[in-house]
Amino acid sequence: MINYENVLNNTIKEIKPSGIRKFFDIAATIDGVISLGVGEPDFPTPWSIRQKAIQTIETKRTVYTANSGLMDLRKAISDYTIKRTGVQYHPEDEVIVTVGGSEAIDISIRSIVSPGDEVLIVEPCFVCYSPIVRLSGGIPVTVQTKVENNFKLKAGDLKDKITDKTKLLILPFPNNPTGAIMTREDLEEIAEVLRGTDILILSDEIYSELTYGKKHCSVIEIDGMRERTIMINGFSKAFAMTGWRLGYLCAPAPLVRQIVKIHQFAIMCSPTVSQYAGIEALTSCDREVAKMVDEYNVRRRFLVGAFNKLGLSCFNPEGAFYVFPCIAGTGLTSEEFCEKLLYLKKVAVVPGNAFGDCGEGYIRVSYAYSLNHLNTAISRIKEFLQEISDGR
Amino acid sequence: MINYENVLNNTIKEIKPSGIRKFFDIAATIDGVISLGVGEPDFPTPWSIRQKAIQTIETKRTVYTANSGLMDLRKAISDYTIKRTGVQYHPEDEVIVTVGGSEAIDISIRSIVSPGDEVLIVEPCFVCYSPIVRLSGGIPVTVQTKVENNFKLKAGDLKDKITDKTKLLILPFPNNPTGAIMTREDLEEIAEVLRGTDILILSDEIYSELTYGKKHCSVIEIDGMRERTIMINGFSKAFAMTGWRLGYLCAPAPLVRQIVKIHQFAIMCSPTVSQYAGIEALTSCDREVAKMVDEYNVRRRFLVGAFNKLGLSCFNPEGAFYVFPCIAGTGLTSEEFCEKLLYLKKVAVVPGNAFGDCGEGYIRVSYAYSLNHLNTAISRIKEFLQEISDGR
Repeated sequence: MINYENVLNNTIKEIKPSGIRKFFDIAATIDGVISLGVGEPDFPTPWSIRQKAIQTIETKRTVYTANSGLMDLRKAISDYTIKRTGVQYHPEDEVIVTVGGSEAIDISIRSIVSPGDEVLIVEPCFVCYSPIVRLSGGIPVTVQTKVENNFKLKAGDLKDKITDKTKLLILPFPNNPTGAIMTREDLEEIAEVLRGTDILILSDEIYSELTYGKKHCSVIEIDGMRERTIMINGFSKAFAMTGWRLGYLCAPAPLVRQIVKIHQFAIMCSPTVSQYAGIEALTSCDREVAKMVDEYNVRRRFLVGAFNKLGLSCFNPEGAFYVFPCIAGTGLTSEEFCEKLLYLKKVAVVPGNAFGDCGEGYIRVSYAYSLNHLNTAISRIKEFLQEISDGR
Repeated sequence: MINYENVLNNTIKEIKPSGIRKFFDIAATIDGVISLGVGEPDFPTPWSIRQKAIQTIETKRTVYTANSGLMDLRKAISDYTIKRTGVQYHPEDEVIVTVGGSEAIDISIRSIVSPGDEVLIVEPCFVCYSPIVRLSGGIPVTVQTKVENNFKLKAGDLKDKITDKTKLLILPFPNNPTGAIMTREDLEEIAEVLRGTDILILSDEIYSELTYGKKHCSVIEIDGMRERTIMINGFSKAFAMTGWRLGYLCAPAPLVRQIVKIHQFAIMCSPTVSQYAGIEALTSCDREVAKMVDEYNVRRRFLVGAFNKLGLSCFNPEGAFYVFPCIAGTGLTSEEFCEKLLYLKKVAVVPGNAFGDCGEGYIRVSYAYSLNHLNTAISRIKEFLQEISDGR
């Protein structure tokens, strides 16, 4: 018999599966669970986008596209980016259409990181960066954000972690799980640290359309940053298009020339029907997006108020669709809190430490769910807090 | 300014873009080119598959699926594989639905290969294996096949290349570009070499449905081989579903448990609409596939006959949809032949050396084109041969 331990890649064996998914696999086995867990819009994909997809299928346009994606989609991405940021990317050689933001992150890291390179990861953050860095032989170096800084990345904290091996900074704002954003002023401070270095930025802006009050500012807008940044975005969150698996990256041509080689060999091209649908999304759906953002905002305010009233102090998020209340006062760890809440009250949320060690003491609650759903969950959490407080 | 040479991964800089695509980017700039180049069915995706996709979109089933894919699709893949090979894979933990065969190849290699591992690559072959192995720090080791062996992998040639660093054999049959197949007897000889070793097999069977005369035999059917094999297949070629980006891998659970982690972090899941469409393809399209195979077979016979008549001796392929005639007698290299043919006669084919050094002296001609199209191309090639022969 094959000894599977011996034949596998050394690093992959040490990597744990996503802490988000792990929890929901348990939740899926329990009847009547109310979930506030998954980062997936509860709105259907807008009809005009779906209609475009149906026409594409009817007219048999289901063959390979260019590796980098349909030129019309790359042009639409370029136009959309200029409109949002004032920064131009050439559709010919500075844009790659990818399989969601996920693939864009993967192929970017693989194109840049060599064994031994250090990659700065701003935590808490989404779960994929560190495993992909490690698979490339890179060394993830955590830069923690703190609630007293509104979970923003601070220039001083960044500076402390830079060494002569630092190759890349991963900048994940608007942030999943905290909901923190970086303003132009915040980014100016970061840029000041990076100017004059050869450190690149991977800016994961998948939640850029989902901000409340302040408009998203991209790091590419800051002087001297475009040349060192791979800007990643996608259709999943803003346009409620998760299952379509469509994202993109924009970067200077010398980087794109390399990144596209991995995309070409490992993926070939993004799903064609999704690509046509994506053109419709970028060019005709501003109103639909605005409506969804308004609805998320109502839910956000409801949840922040509700958690604070329950005594779980809740940072006021300005982006994405998560709140990140502190549960440290209950005396439970994040995992204990989530497990007990799941088993006692059948409410599923994600332990904060799934997003990095500094997420310990927090839980991530998604508001990509209806107000009705959120209301029921809050009632159950209220009962839960009462019970564990009585029990102590 | 950033020095991009310094900030990129060491290996990616050395990897050349696909030689197939390079050629067709040139062809695309010339008016009136007749292409026999791309490995993409000219048939539309069968209507029942497209209809299923449209229903899926209409009913809003466009959200994330489980990382490994829809359970119903994994069951269909399992059933289909039993029917074809007699070998069972458990849909729960031995099947992963991927973004085409391409992603399956990528995540399999990344899960297995550690820096310094040797990977045996049977050439001529498709262009992606070697770059992906190198990006994982592995060392590609070529095992050449020869026309006098009908481009089959021979046990002796394999044995010669095995060292104590050999981790993986990539077995690409039915073969692109040669059209060679491996029969049960051929595979028995290979299995004999591998039994008792810890060498794994990545069996890329993307053309398994497209054989002419003999039914495809998978290496998983050979005694002791299932436990060491990652079997890769997909929907692009058999079901004319290239742009849907849907493939899969089947492997023993201890391997799948590791591979799915990369899939989870780097891709999330395959496109949802394509997954529903894939169920329809596997369960209801045998007749459509048979019709396409019949049509390919007619074209295959036409081309083999035509090339031999032109004096370009042509191996008789038993699978895939390519012929691989020898052009060495013209005195031109493969690249010279293809360039001259493109510029003088506006016919685009692929130089054999794009598929490995031992492809030198050959050209790859796809018959995923109508007979009419093939006929015109052959007339032009006839004129071309006359002209270069006169010119010498």
